[in-house]
Amino acid sequence: MKDKVRVGLVGSGFISAIHADSLKRCAAAELTAVASPTKGKAEAFAQKYGIAHHFTDYRQLLALDEIDLVVIGTPNYLHCECTVKAAEAGKHIVLEKPMCLTLAEADQMVDACRKAKIKFMYAEELCFAPKYVRLKQLLDSGALGHPVLIKQSEKHDGPHAPHFWDVERSGGGVTMDMGCHAIEFFRWMLGRPAIKSVYAQMGTHVHGSKTRGEDNAILILEFANGVTAVAEESWTKLGGMDDRAEVHGSKGVAYADLLHGNAIETYSATGYDYAVEKAGSTVGWSFTIYEEIWNYGFVQEMDHFVECVKEDKQPIVTGEDAKAVMEVLFAAYESAGTERKVMLPFRSPAAKPIDLWKHELGRAIKPTTT
Amino acid sequence: MKDKVRVGLVGSGFISAIHADSLKRCAAAELTAVASPTKGKAEAFAQKYGIAHHFTDYRQLLALDEIDLVVIGTPNYLHCECTVKAAEAGKHIVLEKPMCLTLAEADQMVDACRKAKIKFMYAEELCFAPKYVRLKQLLDSGALGHPVLIKQSEKHDGPHAPHFWDVERSGGGVTMDMGCHAIEFFRWMLGRPAIKSVYAQMGTHVHGSKTRGEDNAILILEFANGVTAVAEESWTKLGGMDDRAEVHGSKGVAYADLLHGNAIETYSATGYDYAVEKAGSTVGWSFTIYEEIWNYGFVQEMDHFVECVKEDKQPIVTGEDAKAVMEVLFAAYESAGTERKVMLPFRSPAAKPIDLWKHELGRAIKPTTT
Amino acid sequence: MKDKVRVGLVGSGFISAIHADSLKRCAAAELTAVASPTKGKAEAFAQKYGIAHHFTDYRQLLALDEIDLVVIGTPNYLHCECTVKAAEAGKHIVLEKPMCLTLAEADQMVDACRKAKIKFMYAEELCFAPKYVRLKQLLDSGALGHPVLIKQSEKHDGPHAPHFWDVERSGGGVTMDMGCHAIEFFRWMLGRPAIKSVYAQMGTHVHGSKTRGEDNAILILEFANGVTAVAEESWTKLGGMDDRAEVHGSKGVAYADLLHGNAIETYSATGYDYAVEKAGSTVGWSFTIYEEIWNYGFVQEMDHFVECVKEDKQPIVTGEDAKAVMEVLFAAYESAGTERKVMLPFRSPAAKPIDLWKHELGRAIKPTTT
Amino acid sequence: MKDKVRVGLVGSGFISAIHADSLKRCAAAELTAVASPTKGKAEAFAQKYGIAHHFTDYRQLLALDEIDLVVIGTPNYLHCECTVKAAEAGKHIVLEKPMCLTLAEADQMVDACRKAKIKFMYAEELCFAPKYVRLKQLLDSGALGHPVLIKQSEKHDGPHAPHFWDVERSGGGVTMDMGCHAIEFFRWMLGRPAIKSVYAQMGTHVHGSKTRGEDNAILILEFANGVTAVAEESWTKLGGMDDRAEVHGSKGVAYADLLHGNAIETYSATGYDYAVEKAGSTVGWSFTIYEEIWNYGFVQEMDHFVECVKEDKQPIVTGEDAKAVMEVLFAAYESAGTERKVMLPFRSPAAKPIDLWKHELGRAIKPTTT
Repeated sequence: MKDKVRVGLVGSGFISAIHADSLKRCAAAELTAVASPTKGKAEAFAQKYGIAHHFTDYRQLLALDEIDLVVIGTPNYLHCECTVKAAEAGKHIVLEKPMCLTLAEADQMVDACRKAKIKFMYAEELCFAPKYVRLKQLLDSGALGHPVLIKQSEKHDGPHAPHFWDVERSGGGVTMDMGCHAIEFFRWMLGRPAIKSVYAQMGTHVHGSKTRGEDNAILILEFANGVTAVAEESWTKLGGMDDRAEVHGSKGVAYADLLHGNAIETYSATGYDYAVEKAGSTVGWSFTIYEEIWNYGFVQEMDHFVECVKEDKQPIVTGEDAKAVMEVLFAAYESAGTERKVMLPFRSPAAKPIDLWKHELGRAIKPTTT
Repeated sequence: MKDKVRVGLVGSGFISAIHADSLKRCAAAELTAVASPTKGKAEAFAQKYGIAHHFTDYRQLLALDEIDLVVIGTPNYLHCECTVKAAEAGKHIVLEKPMCLTLAEADQMVDACRKAKIKFMYAEELCFAPKYVRLKQLLDSGALGHPVLIKQSEKHDGPHAPHFWDVERSGGGVTMDMGCHAIEFFRWMLGRPAIKSVYAQMGTHVHGSKTRGEDNAILILEFANGVTAVAEESWTKLGGMDDRAEVHGSKGVAYADLLHGNAIETYSATGYDYAVEKAGSTVGWSFTIYEEIWNYGFVQEMDHFVECVKEDKQPIVTGEDAKAVMEVLFAAYESAGTERKVMLPFRSPAAKPIDLWKHELGRAIKPTTT
Repeated sequence: MKDKVRVGLVGSGFISAIHADSLKRCAAAELTAVASPTKGKAEAFAQKYGIAHHFTDYRQLLALDEIDLVVIGTPNYLHCECTVKAAEAGKHIVLEKPMCLTLAEADQMVDACRKAKIKFMYAEELCFAPKYVRLKQLLDSGALGHPVLIKQSEKHDGPHAPHFWDVERSGGGVTMDMGCHAIEFFRWMLGRPAIKSVYAQMGTHVHGSKTRGEDNAILILEFANGVTAVAEESWTKLGGMDDRAEVHGSKGVAYADLLHGNAIETYSATGYDYAVEKAGSTVGWSFTIYEEIWNYGFVQEMDHFVECVKEDKQPIVTGEDAKAVMEVLFAAYESAGTERKVMLPFRSPAAKPIDLWKHELGRAIKPTTT
Repeated sequence: MKDKVRVGLVGSGFISAIHADSLKRCAAAELTAVASPTKGKAEAFAQKYGIAHHFTDYRQLLALDEIDLVVIGTPNYLHCECTVKAAEAGKHIVLEKPMCLTLAEADQMVDACRKAKIKFMYAEELCFAPKYVRLKQLLDSGALGHPVLIKQSEKHDGPHAPHFWDVERSGGGVTMDMGCHAIEFFRWMLGRPAIKSVYAQMGTHVHGSKTRGEDNAILILEFANGVTAVAEESWTKLGGMDDRAEVHGSKGVAYADLLHGNAIETYSATGYDYAVEKAGSTVGWSFTIYEEIWNYGFVQEMDHFVECVKEDKQPIVTGEDAKAVMEVLFAAYESAGTERKVMLPFRSPAAKPIDLWKHELGRAIKPTTT
């Protein structure tokens, strides 16, 4: 057992700041290096968080012997290359969602990590959000009987990172950005049974001038154990982030509202600093959240991943899970494109998920259902 | 203009009692007769509500000259015959949901009413529920921008009328029983644009020993104006009736909870008489509703229908609307059966909606998409 | 039994408009006349509501033979004269709250009505608000065990009628304006046991430049049956009217939120017509109420009073009740002035309640506790 | 700076278990010893938490050189002796609420700690509860304007420790047990201005057969800056712990519900392990809390206190604050006994607070208002 786990961050944007804030609160972690290609960004980030090393090329970070764990927070289209190279450098990996752009990339990433015998950990923070952890305990304890319907939704008014508007780099719209949370949430909540089918309804309702990606989506999944799961995702919902889940069982039902339920209800004639992610104005009524990264589970997640490295434990969310999510995302876009339920397992050579919905965006694709 | 509108009830079950209670509160209505086939039931009902005439054969009721308006609250499979005969007798009609068992019946009913030149009114009470009426005003006023997504759901733990377990008499499960509310709600809320397509996910998760009908359903509708609508229906949700709607627009969002939101939050160690429809126990925490039939809009609905007859006005929900709902219900079961999105207009010779999902229940059916 | 009860309104301000709207919905009432001293106001009001007669002198209204019932909605300092004259004219009376300015006036009013043998009805609408009626039923049914603590509060950002800022005409601040609701609510909810004592905390926190009256108040009442009651009143609460009650018993507890609980939760980037009384802006989050006068019980109240006149029944809130409230109001200001609990019965020759708190406002007063 | 702060617990009951659980999550703390007089209890506790030393006499614990910090969780009447002895032994102190039984004891404790130059820290966890910390930030930021009214209440169905029923050992009822939280909450929230006066309403409504202490209390405090504060406390509220606060300001208002607001809303036909403190049954509807000690702030509190010792920092809640709370508690019972507002500063030689309310419980007391 090592004394501290030394961590390098790849990326310096919105999510990397959350990674740094979370790692600062993990007793066993030491933030050692950060890499970001734009000149000056890594340096400023390192200064803000008191990080010893900063680089513009993440390969320099990977070359540092002392780094044990790399946390990847780059744009989606760079995830594959970065993961493979980190695995080759023998570093443990925490990868931000969504995994990558193609199913072939997903295979390549999992293979590279397996070959390098490093831990490939997938940063699905909903599996660590305290309220959702309690929700899973309720279900597991039998309090709700056997599950019938499970729901999760995330809604706000548009992505944090501008590259998400560009489907060439993001691979898709709100389904890629937030639907991936719901998919892993369902798998985790139900104990990861196989997924039988996916149906998706997508539309670009409000942001059509900015993106070819969908800004609203509904996903229906059928699990092998008979449970139906419904995900709702939106980039057009004003008034602050909405993150909710429901579990309907044969003997009961439970509703968990991650943010609104936890908030202070505030009316301010003057407004104030910050209510909640994407809140817009704080004048008038608002729902003031607190300890936001804790409520989302980011701190607990990093704590868990750092401990996995330190104590050589099995992570509860891995690259294999990330790959399973990718498969569903591809199937979801395929469903939106074909207007039918898509059965799993599903394979596709598509260059990015959204090509399966908007065929004109990609090359001609022949989807394959095994 | 007549002084009072004289009303005859066909049926004496759960919903007919609501009709009677509501009509009692309509100044312009006079409850004049009731018909119910089981010996003694109509008599007891007439006594309870102070109704002058009672019959075991509803045709006797139709033969009464003084009756202006007939309110039909019979089991689904009797709706068609009863409606046609009432029209032929020259009575105005209020028909309880769902309309009937086949699309051919729907045609026949609308035709008979048109020919008889009587008002054919469809008792979709959600179009009268005060909270939903206000929700529609919000949307119509532009407060929420243009609509993107609209949701409505009803959930409780099983049908009031036992005949609903028998799909031969009901035509289907929870989609027939409660999904029909959501469909008309969507149409009404959006100003009745055409429906482009329907996708349905159905399952029998808990009540399989009692019924071949689905006890849970998710419906996704696409409207011609680009709006997506999602209905959730359940017969397996414990803890009291749940009736909610959401409107998500480009400039705002509104959430309306018909029952839980209105309730008194009560904790009782001893329990008490009644909390809300299907509440189960009232020991411990419960959500105590009040003026329940008013909150649902039943009184306002009857008031409106009676006024339509009295003043010869155009009802806001008619048999044509009922027929549009039937079309969606058939398309929904077709979608559940074929696992694909079903485009509208949709025609089908099926003997009842559920035959399109569980083919073994019906004769071989060749669905037709025009 | 008369066919219709003919009603005359004295006053044409905020509350008289509510009276008119409510009476319009009472089948047995006929709005026949309105009186208001400012030239043109009664005429405009009569036109708006389709009222046959309008006067600038309410004595002309009282002289109309056909009037059965007078509803008084004038400023507080005119209540006594108006009530006495209406009684002398043999009219039944509905009096808006609060009753009057002095305890001597209260005696005089009750005596005049008793002598004239007319019904003296007191418009405490909370006794008719459907949610509170259900709350009382819960308590009466034993669901909560025996009551221990009962609470009611009303809060908004300042009075509707400008004369309320002037304590010479209103008699006091928010305690007179809204505390009177709580006092009668407590009495009614508990079955009108005697009140043993009153303690009051008052302050002028925000509106000191506009009024010498208190803009915030807390009242603690002890009832003869051992129950404690707490009233909270405010004229400084932004974000819309707040009207809540709680009943804490030995076997349970119940929470009723009259407005916020009933509302649609709305987020609007643009704003819209109306959310709720005193809402301020509707941009951003707001709580959209609907059927507001019904939720408050105004319609039900008028219906009841009209029926009392029509059928010669005993009203559930009378001038005697109004007088009991006055006694508590005087005791409350006495408590705020002496910083001690004040025992009931309490008599005082004060010219208006607030003189007992801010002695410099009145002449020297010697309070009397019998 | 020391590597770890070594902590000894005095007590092994309900609250000491919370102390242990919290300290386990403080990276800088090491649980080293526990003392409890009942044979076997300290040993079992030490075993459960992996604590090296256990004693039946806490003086043996104080004699351990390696102990830096003592956390006192004994019954109230032992707080003084234990604190004085710990100070004399040169240990830093964390003292559980309420401070002690008499104002003379309070003086003695503060003097002993000052003389010993050790840190005397007062375990008011509400000052660390994340939601309330955010509430204070809102107020401090000016979002609500200047404060007008501040409220806090705690309600459940009776004390955890049986000795609390015996006022000889506890000093009083629910005001001593839970009112002390509200008092320090108000002081902390407002920046600790002087308290001008106290008024208290107390009653023994339900548990009269078990205790002479009050089981319900309302406190009204006036602060020197003009703010009114209202505390509500109850030992008779069924359905789970209720812990809420409100801040009403001239420019806004904020509502924080510590438990109910954070909870998952659960309906279970079968019941389950645990919903929330004092929940009673979990069958039917319940409000399922999670990370309860974190939501209350216990972990954060211990973290802060340990850091104060480790880094020699000034604690944010001290023995001086505890003493200020004691003064208000005595004034509150004096108010309940005299039925008047009691001005501060207030001194009293009473042997315990409740003697000032129920004079027959103590010797003849002459209260002193300076």
